[in-house]
Amino acid sequence: MLDISVLQELFAKQKDEVFQDFFSFLRFKSIATDPNYDDEVEACADWVSSYLKGYGLSVEKWETGRAPVIFASDLRAGPEKETLLLYCHYDVQPVDPLEEWLSPPFEPTIRDGEVYARGAVDNKGQCFYTLVAIKTLLKQLGQLSVNLKIVIEGEEESGSVGLSKILEEKREALKADYLLIVDSGVYKLEEPAITLGARGITCMEVSVQEADYDLHSGMAGGMAYNPNRALAEMLSKLHHEDGSVAIPGFNDEVIEIAPREKEALCFKFDPVQFHTLFGFEPTGMETGFTPTEACSLRPTLEINGMWGGYTGPGFKTIVPATAHAKLSCRLVPDQVPERITALVRDFLISNTPKGLKTKVEIFKGSGRGFRTNPGSRIAQLMTESYTQVFQKPCKKILMGGTIPIAVELAETAKAEMLLVGLALPGDHIHAPNEHFGLDRFEQGYLTICRTLELFG
Amino acid sequence: MLDISVLQELFAKQKDEVFQDFFSFLRFKSIATDPNYDDEVEACADWVSSYLKGYGLSVEKWETGRAPVIFASDLRAGPEKETLLLYCHYDVQPVDPLEEWLSPPFEPTIRDGEVYARGAVDNKGQCFYTLVAIKTLLKQLGQLSVNLKIVIEGEEESGSVGLSKILEEKREALKADYLLIVDSGVYKLEEPAITLGARGITCMEVSVQEADYDLHSGMAGGMAYNPNRALAEMLSKLHHEDGSVAIPGFNDEVIEIAPREKEALCFKFDPVQFHTLFGFEPTGMETGFTPTEACSLRPTLEINGMWGGYTGPGFKTIVPATAHAKLSCRLVPDQVPERITALVRDFLISNTPKGLKTKVEIFKGSGRGFRTNPGSRIAQLMTESYTQVFQKPCKKILMGGTIPIAVELAETAKAEMLLVGLALPGDHIHAPNEHFGLDRFEQGYLTICRTLELFG
Repeated sequence: MLDISVLQELFAKQKDEVFQDFFSFLRFKSIATDPNYDDEVEACADWVSSYLKGYGLSVEKWETGRAPVIFASDLRAGPEKETLLLYCHYDVQPVDPLEEWLSPPFEPTIRDGEVYARGAVDNKGQCFYTLVAIKTLLKQLGQLSVNLKIVIEGEEESGSVGLSKILEEKREALKADYLLIVDSGVYKLEEPAITLGARGITCMEVSVQEADYDLHSGMAGGMAYNPNRALAEMLSKLHHEDGSVAIPGFNDEVIEIAPREKEALCFKFDPVQFHTLFGFEPTGMETGFTPTEACSLRPTLEINGMWGGYTGPGFKTIVPATAHAKLSCRLVPDQVPERITALVRDFLISNTPKGLKTKVEIFKGSGRGFRTNPGSRIAQLMTESYTQVFQKPCKKILMGGTIPIAVELAETAKAEMLLVGLALPGDHIHAPNEHFGLDRFEQGYLTICRTLELFG
Repeated sequence: MLDISVLQELFAKQKDEVFQDFFSFLRFKSIATDPNYDDEVEACADWVSSYLKGYGLSVEKWETGRAPVIFASDLRAGPEKETLLLYCHYDVQPVDPLEEWLSPPFEPTIRDGEVYARGAVDNKGQCFYTLVAIKTLLKQLGQLSVNLKIVIEGEEESGSVGLSKILEEKREALKADYLLIVDSGVYKLEEPAITLGARGITCMEVSVQEADYDLHSGMAGGMAYNPNRALAEMLSKLHHEDGSVAIPGFNDEVIEIAPREKEALCFKFDPVQFHTLFGFEPTGMETGFTPTEACSLRPTLEINGMWGGYTGPGFKTIVPATAHAKLSCRLVPDQVPERITALVRDFLISNTPKGLKTKVEIFKGSGRGFRTNPGSRIAQLMTESYTQVFQKPCKKILMGGTIPIAVELAETAKAEMLLVGLALPGDHIHAPNEHFGLDRFEQGYLTICRTLELFG
């Protein structure tokens, strides 16, 4: 097994080239959720494919109808060895509000050792250190001691609709013993951790309509039931005062975590660090839960977007014809996305004031939440890897976010699944000024190198 | 006095030129509420000024810091005669949602005898028939039997801030016996009417902030108090279930209309016509009021715009840092805009959930509501004019909308004030596809001609 210091030397030698390639990867505007960027998404997929081919992996481009999936493999370890499936994604979140970026989101810029760009962490940064680790080991060792499969998809941020569609057809190709999703984080670098679960998701858009077109608020104000008012009233009924979701049946499948399971997990919350990073004190928790518990053990219903009427400069005195909101739920294991979506939709429709019409559009790409058994081999290997690289005990945490395809992919591959990664709470994921440390890039590379070798 | 048929002939002779000029007027993108259109606003003011100079009026351009005010006068009737001050405006509402316009908003297009353009009615159409009436009479008679003053401002749609600022300085110039505001409408052309009052207005923008920037809804969802949720909950408290405004003290100055005063007014509401025009049945009225009563005798609090988080295509799973709403109140006489604004602001701030900050920006350009005494000379003259032109009895109505400067202007001029105009409920004022009938343009011209002569 190569010494960590050897892996560090190997990294140092290729550093300039690695970051040059990483920045090329970051320059693609691969916002798959917005059809305006389809060409950039395609070009980014092709770039990933070329990169993987460049170091001798067998690479396939799987068409999905939208963003292609890049699949690569190296099965030279042989059928008697275990198979590891790695999962990353090359698509990124939209960039607005654009005016809040200190440097352009698709022009990677280094400040204080951090690279600022959309996707710097989520997931291009984590994806690319994974690829660099594989490349380096293959070059150095000639062959790995584990059969390797890599799936890098382009619709993670919009629900993995394309990958989900072709899973059945690719069942044989995806078969693996372990699924390692490199798209997670830790609370602090001094406390390395593996992630033993993530929440699921379901997304929808609600539209409330009254008149055929916007009305003059002098003429109609007082007689029309303003759709903004109607929507605000409907949305205000979604939560109880104690912070829990008020839709009947929403929490029926939420199972309380067993005390022993809970004890094994770290739910640390540092209010000072949090305030420094985000500028507020969290107050949205359900009564009885700490902030970290609330955003991992409990489901949510969030209003991700809301709009109606005039929102430009100055004033426009209208009663708008329509008002809209984008809603998403984060789900805990056992909550079925389709059932929750139907509950939210029916609740909104039944709470619509007389005279207005409510439509709910359900987005494709929901996903279930999951938990990983801490005793599984993949969890133990990664724990060992993180402990060696960081020279600290490795904790076990849960993630509040979602890998929409995770459960389906693990079921298809018949693999034990684990989430890992080195994102930090202050990385501005999904926000303006997303950034990733170049030192963390190297540490990520080390963790993947070490894990691949530990399989041996 | 010229016969109506003579006035019609005079109109027919110059029709092509009149409409050509009218369309030039409509082509200016004079959206004064949006600073991006400052040049168009200025150019439009200059065009109005040139037009008025073209027929011999003494014209002044009053600078206000923003949109200039065009003031013209013809005082040749002499000091022993009465003075009439006419008020119109050349600014228009914003045009969004642009995609809903069937023809471009600043390219006047005739369909079925109606001209479609932003400002076609409000107020360029009504302003221009007024100017054509004056021009025609001056040309035909050489001189009027009333001293005439005309003020055409450029910030009516954004609260007349500039005109308000210079009123004191222009007190002498504005002095008049009567103030006629040509910016109102009728329910139906078969029921001509003068408008004996309008509501006041006050506008504000509320912003709710939590984090310093948008958060990942997986990471923060369940711990953050989503500002969209907070705002929806705050806005949902603005109204009682019976439709009345729920802010303590909001209705304290609302005086019930005396039965005799109410009897003299027409509050007719035609549900079939309304549904045909607007596609819905009004359900937002306060309990105990008909639709027409609700939107003229009662104050309102409307959410004209509301936005927070991601509103683009697809999905972005964030907890936004901020959420916003534009609110306006229509006020009845005796409600003081400043007092109402403070009540709304304090209510919103005191209903902000813990952990969030609410800021309320108060827009300049509030205005008081008013009522005109039906026995006043200006009301009687206009009633006579409308009766003669339409050959129907002239009704008395109230307007739900606002002329922000009306009360201040009337007080400065020491004039008896009246509102008139020929807008119809289906004209799409403030909405896409605003339109005005070319036949109504001529009828409007006739009413102003006849009124000017009736002063004689």
